Amino acid sequence: MIPDTDYSTTVKAYKIWMPMITYCFPISITLHRIRRHRSIMLIQSLKVIRRVLSRGPNSIQLRNTMSTVTRFQPCTQNFIFRQLFDATSSTYTYLLGDADSAECILIDPVVEHAKRDFQLTKDLNLKLVYAVNTHMHADHITGTGYLKKLSGCKSVISRQSGAQADVLIEENDFITFGNQRLKVLSTPGHTNGCCSYYSEQQGIAFTGDALLIRGCGRTDFQEGNSETLYRSVHDKIFTLPDNTRLYPAHDYKGLMVTSVDEEKRLNPRLTKTMEEFVKIMDNLNLAYPAQIDKALPANKVCGLYDIPPE
Amino acid sequence: MIPDTDYSTTVKAYKIWMPMITYCFPISITLHRIRRHRSIMLIQSLKVIRRVLSRGPNSIQLRNTMSTVTRFQPCTQNFIFRQLFDATSSTYTYLLGDADSAECILIDPVVEHAKRDFQLTKDLNLKLVYAVNTHMHADHITGTGYLKKLSGCKSVISRQSGAQADVLIEENDFITFGNQRLKVLSTPGHTNGCCSYYSEQQGIAFTGDALLIRGCGRTDFQEGNSETLYRSVHDKIFTLPDNTRLYPAHDYKGLMVTSVDEEKRLNPRLTKTMEEFVKIMDNLNLAYPAQIDKALPANKVCGLYDIPPE
Repeated sequence: MIPDTDYSTTVKAYKIWMPMITYCFPISITLHRIRRHRSIMLIQSLKVIRRVLSRGPNSIQLRNTMSTVTRFQPCTQNFIFRQLFDATSSTYTYLLGDADSAECILIDPVVEHAKRDFQLTKDLNLKLVYAVNTHMHADHITGTGYLKKLSGCKSVISRQSGAQADVLIEENDFITFGNQRLKVLSTPGHTNGCCSYYSEQQGIAFTGDALLIRGCGRTDFQEGNSETLYRSVHDKIFTLPDNTRLYPAHDYKGLMVTSVDEEKRLNPRLTKTMEEFVKIMDNLNLAYPAQIDKALPANKVCGLYDIPPE
Repeated sequence: MIPDTDYSTTVKAYKIWMPMITYCFPISITLHRIRRHRSIMLIQSLKVIRRVLSRGPNSIQLRNTMSTVTRFQPCTQNFIFRQLFDATSSTYTYLLGDADSAECILIDPVVEHAKRDFQLTKDLNLKLVYAVNTHMHADHITGTGYLKKLSGCKSVISRQSGAQADVLIEENDFITFGNQRLKVLSTPGHTNGCCSYYSEQQGIAFTGDALLIRGCGRTDFQEGNSETLYRSVHDKIFTLPDNTRLYPAHDYKGLMVTSVDEEKRLNPRLTKTMEEFVKIMDNLNLAYPAQIDKALPANKVCGLYDIPPE
């Protein structure tokens, strides 16, 4: 049975609601978008005005300088980072951790500080998974052997170094700990097996002895080659983004970090031509490294040799 | 003259458009809000799922550890920060800059490194506006005097220190450079005029000699008072957010930074009761500071005395 309905009401409703749906919805959304866009524009303008005002009377002079101040990309909140120092050999050790997984690694630990570094991993509630070297050091004994004993971590070094370790790495490999990873860049020249480690996510690279702050590693012993080092730095490190933080294996003047931008502008050796660089490196006349005869045999077995008694 | 108009069209238009304006606009905006809210909810759910999956098979074990790994608040991109070291007195100097205005300050510069520090401000294209001390040091001569001469900056120290400077600061004052500012916290105990400087925006505090990494400044000379120091640390530093990075004026073991959380858990002196702390401090039997007789008279005029010849 068909119900007795007055269709005129439906038709009237249709006549009223159809134009509403067809015209009003798009109009109101467009108006909403315009309003949103306007308030964004307003906020941006206010920010610009505030920035200009905050500069005070020197605004013009400072505007020129502004563009050259390098801004680092902020690290993610799950990235744990500590720089550590050995005053005897002026070596920097780095603790890198991942807060999500509580895993961490150490780069270039020094045997005399292995206990300090292991204690720090425990203080931060992190689990040490790898003790990594950038190369086979000549100026200190690596802490990797002792750290393996203390923590059960694995030792890591490049295959090219000729040293023994649990994990041998090569160019373009990744060292992974939790949600963090470091790309292996082969940067020979100071030694054949020198590597730099790069985290694109954090905008950070660890350059070992390839590139130091306003300097570089020596090339006068242990497979050293100035031309190779020059190419490594120019091809592998100076090609990273300008605002990449660079952490070296050593500094002798109390500086702790630099950037690609700074070294490309200010490195007194590596801003020169390759010929000039080779000449500078040939005339450094550096002293024979104090610990080399003890350090090299130990580091060849990646620090497993001569572990201090507890 | 009144124009001859057919008002029936206007009435019809009114009948159609009024309900549109009254009902359709709010409906469409509400729908838009629901859709936006839904997509935010969806993104958040996906993030949670990804986080749980990334933990892998050890998710339960790691979930317990996770909560105790302190995550620092990332610094803003316009914040420039460098830590510097003086190996002789194991003093840390800090360069803090603002990329928007290109202004910077130095905290606790050491006279022997004034040139290095000034050169760094130039290398980073920054203009030094203040050279600040956390207190009147007894172990090194401040670099503020020499830096004033090199850069034209102003020297800053607390009024309570009794030292002379261009700007004398007090509790709750702000040291402002560009879009950055440090709040002055009065933290006496090592000396009467000791201050800590706190940036809420960056989640960073500079604690001078009040709180060191797993330690604290000595209280056995130069207005030292163990009870006052204990109260300063507990009331002014331990009350900052747990994930505040703490940068001290010194470290003697190669550590560079700590956090409120770490020191509240692990400081071997300041986790004790006040009575135990006073007993520990009374029995340190430390040597007389090597440079005190030279440093104090110089620092009393905030380093204006005995500026090395160029």
